[in-house]
Amino acid sequence: MALRFADGALWALDQRRLPWREVELELRSAQEVVAAVKGLSIRGAPLIGVAAAYGVAIELERDPQTLERACAMLAGARPTGVNLARAVARVETAAVRAPPGRAAALALAEARAIHDEEEAASALIARHGADELAGRRRILTHCNTGALAAPGRGTALAVIAELADRGELEMAVVAESRPLLQGARLTVYELRRLGIAHELIVDGAAAGLIASGQIDAVVVGCDRVAANGDVANKVGTYAHALAAAAAGIPFVVAGPTSTIDPDCPSGADIVVEERDGEEVRTAVFGPDGASGPLTVPGTPCRNPAFDVTPAALVTALVTERGVVRPARGGALNAFHDIHVKR
Amino acid sequence: MALRFADGALWALDQRRLPWREVELELRSAQEVVAAVKGLSIRGAPLIGVAAAYGVAIELERDPQTLERACAMLAGARPTGVNLARAVARVETAAVRAPPGRAAALALAEARAIHDEEEAASALIARHGADELAGRRRILTHCNTGALAAPGRGTALAVIAELADRGELEMAVVAESRPLLQGARLTVYELRRLGIAHELIVDGAAAGLIASGQIDAVVVGCDRVAANGDVANKVGTYAHALAAAAAGIPFVVAGPTSTIDPDCPSGADIVVEERDGEEVRTAVFGPDGASGPLTVPGTPCRNPAFDVTPAALVTALVTERGVVRPARGGALNAFHDIHVKR
Repeated sequence: MALRFADGALWALDQRRLPWREVELELRSAQEVVAAVKGLSIRGAPLIGVAAAYGVAIELERDPQTLERACAMLAGARPTGVNLARAVARVETAAVRAPPGRAAALALAEARAIHDEEEAASALIARHGADELAGRRRILTHCNTGALAAPGRGTALAVIAELADRGELEMAVVAESRPLLQGARLTVYELRRLGIAHELIVDGAAAGLIASGQIDAVVVGCDRVAANGDVANKVGTYAHALAAAAAGIPFVVAGPTSTIDPDCPSGADIVVEERDGEEVRTAVFGPDGASGPLTVPGTPCRNPAFDVTPAALVTALVTERGVVRPARGGALNAFHDIHVKR
Repeated sequence: MALRFADGALWALDQRRLPWREVELELRSAQEVVAAVKGLSIRGAPLIGVAAAYGVAIELERDPQTLERACAMLAGARPTGVNLARAVARVETAAVRAPPGRAAALALAEARAIHDEEEAASALIARHGADELAGRRRILTHCNTGALAAPGRGTALAVIAELADRGELEMAVVAESRPLLQGARLTVYELRRLGIAHELIVDGAAAGLIASGQIDAVVVGCDRVAANGDVANKVGTYAHALAAAAAGIPFVVAGPTSTIDPDCPSGADIVVEERDGEEVRTAVFGPDGASGPLTVPGTPCRNPAFDVTPAALVTALVTERGVVRPARGGALNAFHDIHVKR
């Protein structure tokens, strides 16, 4: 389990150590949760939302005076996802509105509710996504969107797992997802555990495989979906979407409605996190967290962690409430409805 | 210098050791040249053509009986480029037609002629390419196409160097080019030596930077250009071409006419080399050729070394004989003329 709350602490599988070592981190303050999120020990838009929600509750128990500062720190740990800020706001509101002496207990209850909601969403996303992709046997995915990225079975990888359960999947093709190799490290780890046939590729190989008819559909997760249907997701996603469109295969985005941000008009308004160039200059490898240089030390780098795929390329957005089609103009109303109904 | 012939041997900078160590290999048989080409110590379509040409001459000197077998072995060392087979055929023909006792000498003269031609081509490609890209200040490139990939200054990187010489370049943005990181290792090494401002990115970051207006043009090399203008180049190229087309910036391919294959009707007819999955599962790092695992050992991989960019996405093909425009229907005649004139 990627994340669990027990004995007053948040326990998180340290994803920096996977697939080499299964080590649980014990987090007992908002600051420790923030460090785990910034350092990517906990990652995946839905999962960091849940982690931050527990972080508020833990901090309230530890020191009730620091609520506002802790919430600001947690909400700002990573800028691109929307679940994070929204989850923190929900728990903060529950705490602020609580009767005297009940803030910590009600904050924890709200965090558990968010956790349960996301887990339920995952199961529904898997079902809707597998219906959407029926008949597509070779599926490409990017980054990690399984049980390590979201409660339950995850998002895009939950769709792939559901297709496998239905006996409809021939091959999960996994893009390694440089620089941090979440595909190579985490998605491969999950697919092995699930017993699902998989092949790993470098990110740059995806477009050519799609063009030559070796991929039937692409399914990815999302970190933030703008009101117009533009999707921010792990860097490298947009190129897969372009290749899918050029080849006429579906490009499907899977995520809970908690990743939809109606206050963000379009992809141009999404802040793309730029991370340390050292992630590009090096690769982490092997069981002991060793890293080695891939280029001349000190080489200047750009390292955007995400990119934006325009709505026009998104064949389907699969949520727990059903499927909407940003690529078709008419679908945008339904897309907004989904959020408004929430 | 990436390659030189002296004292009866071919001396080649071992590109597997760069940027960490500058080590020259001494190659004294066709078999040694083949091993260096297969192992990527010598790489870049024009450069392996020249290396193989010298390989024929060296082998003739060593053992005149083995000409046919040596030529077959050299021509088949890597399947995707066309320069290789063509250069070997030229030297073999020179040897077969030579008067008694003169085969080795005439083979060497032919190899030197090929070397000289490619070097002259490089200078002209640089000039034509810089004219084509005048006013484009932030240029993205992929893989390595400089003095390590082709005689002289190279192909695409020669264009970038020429733009820098003219004071027109603001930034060379280098895609690392997984799995073997020719961008991170070799292009960064060359740009540092040339004193040209550069930034390194992961391959998946290119499309997003292009879409957000941070790149003014893409220029890449080519391993084989089909008669219809489709271009085979290092895996990852096609995604950059899609992104450039979507953003309306030029996608320019630079290469000598020796990479054009009129016998290959289209990209669908190009054999794409599939290399060992270990290249995907690991990364080579640091000065001592160490490598480390990036994923679970034994993970199944696909590892196509190249992809095909359709002619419709190629704004300009820059050769030593001038510029042709595969993306425009009318340009295809000129494109064929270039080859026929040769």
